[in-house]
Amino acid sequence: MKNTYRKRRDALRRKLCERNLDAMLISYAANRYYLSGFELHDVQFNETAGYLLVAADGRDMLLTDGRYEEVAESLLPGQVRIYRHNKGETVAGALRSLGKKIAYEADALSAKFASELFAYASDLAFVPGDSLVSALRLIKDAQEIAALERSFALNHALLSWIEKELAFGQSETEIAWKIESYFREHGASELAFPSIVAVNANASLPHAQPGASVVTEPSLVLIDVGCRVDGYCSDQTRTFWLGSTRDERFETTKARVAEAQRAAIDAMKPGVRLCDIAAKAKAVFEKYGVADAFLHSLGHGVGLETHEGPSFAKNAEDVLLPGMVVTVEPGLYYPNWGGVRIEHTVLVEENGVRVL
Amino acid sequence: MKNTYRKRRDALRRKLCERNLDAMLISYAANRYYLSGFELHDVQFNETAGYLLVAADGRDMLLTDGRYEEVAESLLPGQVRIYRHNKGETVAGALRSLGKKIAYEADALSAKFASELFAYASDLAFVPGDSLVSALRLIKDAQEIAALERSFALNHALLSWIEKELAFGQSETEIAWKIESYFREHGASELAFPSIVAVNANASLPHAQPGASVVTEPSLVLIDVGCRVDGYCSDQTRTFWLGSTRDERFETTKARVAEAQRAAIDAMKPGVRLCDIAAKAKAVFEKYGVADAFLHSLGHGVGLETHEGPSFAKNAEDVLLPGMVVTVEPGLYYPNWGGVRIEHTVLVEENGVRVL
Repeated sequence: MKNTYRKRRDALRRKLCERNLDAMLISYAANRYYLSGFELHDVQFNETAGYLLVAADGRDMLLTDGRYEEVAESLLPGQVRIYRHNKGETVAGALRSLGKKIAYEADALSAKFASELFAYASDLAFVPGDSLVSALRLIKDAQEIAALERSFALNHALLSWIEKELAFGQSETEIAWKIESYFREHGASELAFPSIVAVNANASLPHAQPGASVVTEPSLVLIDVGCRVDGYCSDQTRTFWLGSTRDERFETTKARVAEAQRAAIDAMKPGVRLCDIAAKAKAVFEKYGVADAFLHSLGHGVGLETHEGPSFAKNAEDVLLPGMVVTVEPGLYYPNWGGVRIEHTVLVEENGVRVL
Repeated sequence: MKNTYRKRRDALRRKLCERNLDAMLISYAANRYYLSGFELHDVQFNETAGYLLVAADGRDMLLTDGRYEEVAESLLPGQVRIYRHNKGETVAGALRSLGKKIAYEADALSAKFASELFAYASDLAFVPGDSLVSALRLIKDAQEIAALERSFALNHALLSWIEKELAFGQSETEIAWKIESYFREHGASELAFPSIVAVNANASLPHAQPGASVVTEPSLVLIDVGCRVDGYCSDQTRTFWLGSTRDERFETTKARVAEAQRAAIDAMKPGVRLCDIAAKAKAVFEKYGVADAFLHSLGHGVGLETHEGPSFAKNAEDVLLPGMVVTVEPGLYYPNWGGVRIEHTVLVEENGVRVL
């Protein structure tokens, strides 16, 4: 993997050179991990595990505190600097040793630390460069795709298993814990995000939190789950009907959602704009006069994070490119009744997409 | 609880008035929850669930996106504003409606959002006020103490249980998963922090991560665990010896750590400086000539977060006050052998401390 991390840093390095930047300060945890393998998570919101410095001339560094020295040293031998209470000063000094013009992640540096750093390094020029690493992360490499395949394989196994395990009398929180246990006991390091298990009317909220509501006969049960395997997240949703008889409204709603998802997936291939794909799903809902019941965007990228680029919500003008991994998750939501969402995630390939 | 949240906001309001501030923008998730009950966690590092505005004149507001409207409205009825892509503009406008002089959390606002906000609100004066809420959170109120008692009761139950469950052949990750399952199946909403389970030499790293190392006969096993119950974290460490015979080095090391912990706890009462308490523990280690093997600070505050004020590491001149909750966790670490840490958490009361 060390070789992979260096290749990724080299790709970033080329971007820095193109822009005449001497170095980049990486403080966003997922980007730091992507480029070095160092700590995917920070301990707590206000406690960073450290900073990665990527230098145009190759003198990359990891700056961290004593707790992480050993692991940092194993990843970038001889290129680790330890700070104690002098974090701002240490980071400023390390950056100064690499040049004058520094890119930084304005979205991942607190206003407080940024002003401290800029004061210590008033001789340097800082340039926001938030999109530099996320642009690289948009396109998954072979190792990432392999990890995503493992994560989605476990997610599929979970969904097949949980459908058979669902029973009347179970509460949403009970089901959520069964899901988490299954993931963890079958190789996931953690959940990718808190599971959504929503029974009946609760499913009308796209981001429902599991509660004390119980599966009664008959019930609609919406399950939106993700696990993390080898660092990579999976994200899928299914909506089940538990009852001895077919429910007309559920069947109709589910068929419309499935049709919208199919229309979107069929339209996906390299070069197509995200907004044109979203329009395909919307057109299906409009045909049935239910477009108002679709309350969110069609999907988002998935990788080291559950939510990453590309984004149907924010950059809908962007086009699909080979190597992108995107959820396709149309849904229809009706207050006091419930909701149906179906979510699969696809990998964009040369001639179309492959469902993961 | 709504009444409790309002009382806490009133306490902050008094501080704002004392400082002639018109309002405060709360973006730090744990502070937002402490003051309103709204979302203890943000979804992802770069995705806030929303902002709480506390106004000197009482016109508090919650600003969030559509996903959280219902829950926000249930907490502050009629005081919720929804933003879509115009977050900076919406927050600026809401702040402007409350006055001119605004405190904000420089440590919990990204440099990017801060500059966007300051541009939209260039007519307002922004003042960093990071310590205003953390100063309130230092002193736990009755409801917080009750939640902490429940969290620590479960933590004690876990430690009694796991000591009996430990067996040769188990790996660190297996034990860590047993611990997490126990916590979750007995009322915890989640872990307070990733469990540390370290066998033998792995225990010489204060922040070891569980791995494939297996408990063999004989083994030293260090377990540092926390759970979250009703929002509140617990944090305790024990170090066990698994073997058919007594181990002299382990017994000696453990006795010294226990003596250091006892000396610190005996010295704790309102008015005593943190540095003087730490000195008591250190004096014990110095007496035995092992002070160099104590690699971290004596402890930290615990509450809504595992790491919060007061801090032995950062503010050692501060004094204990009734209502503070602090870990006392001396340890001795020897490379290639292992480490012993014993951690209890105490609540400061009028005449001393009570171990939680």
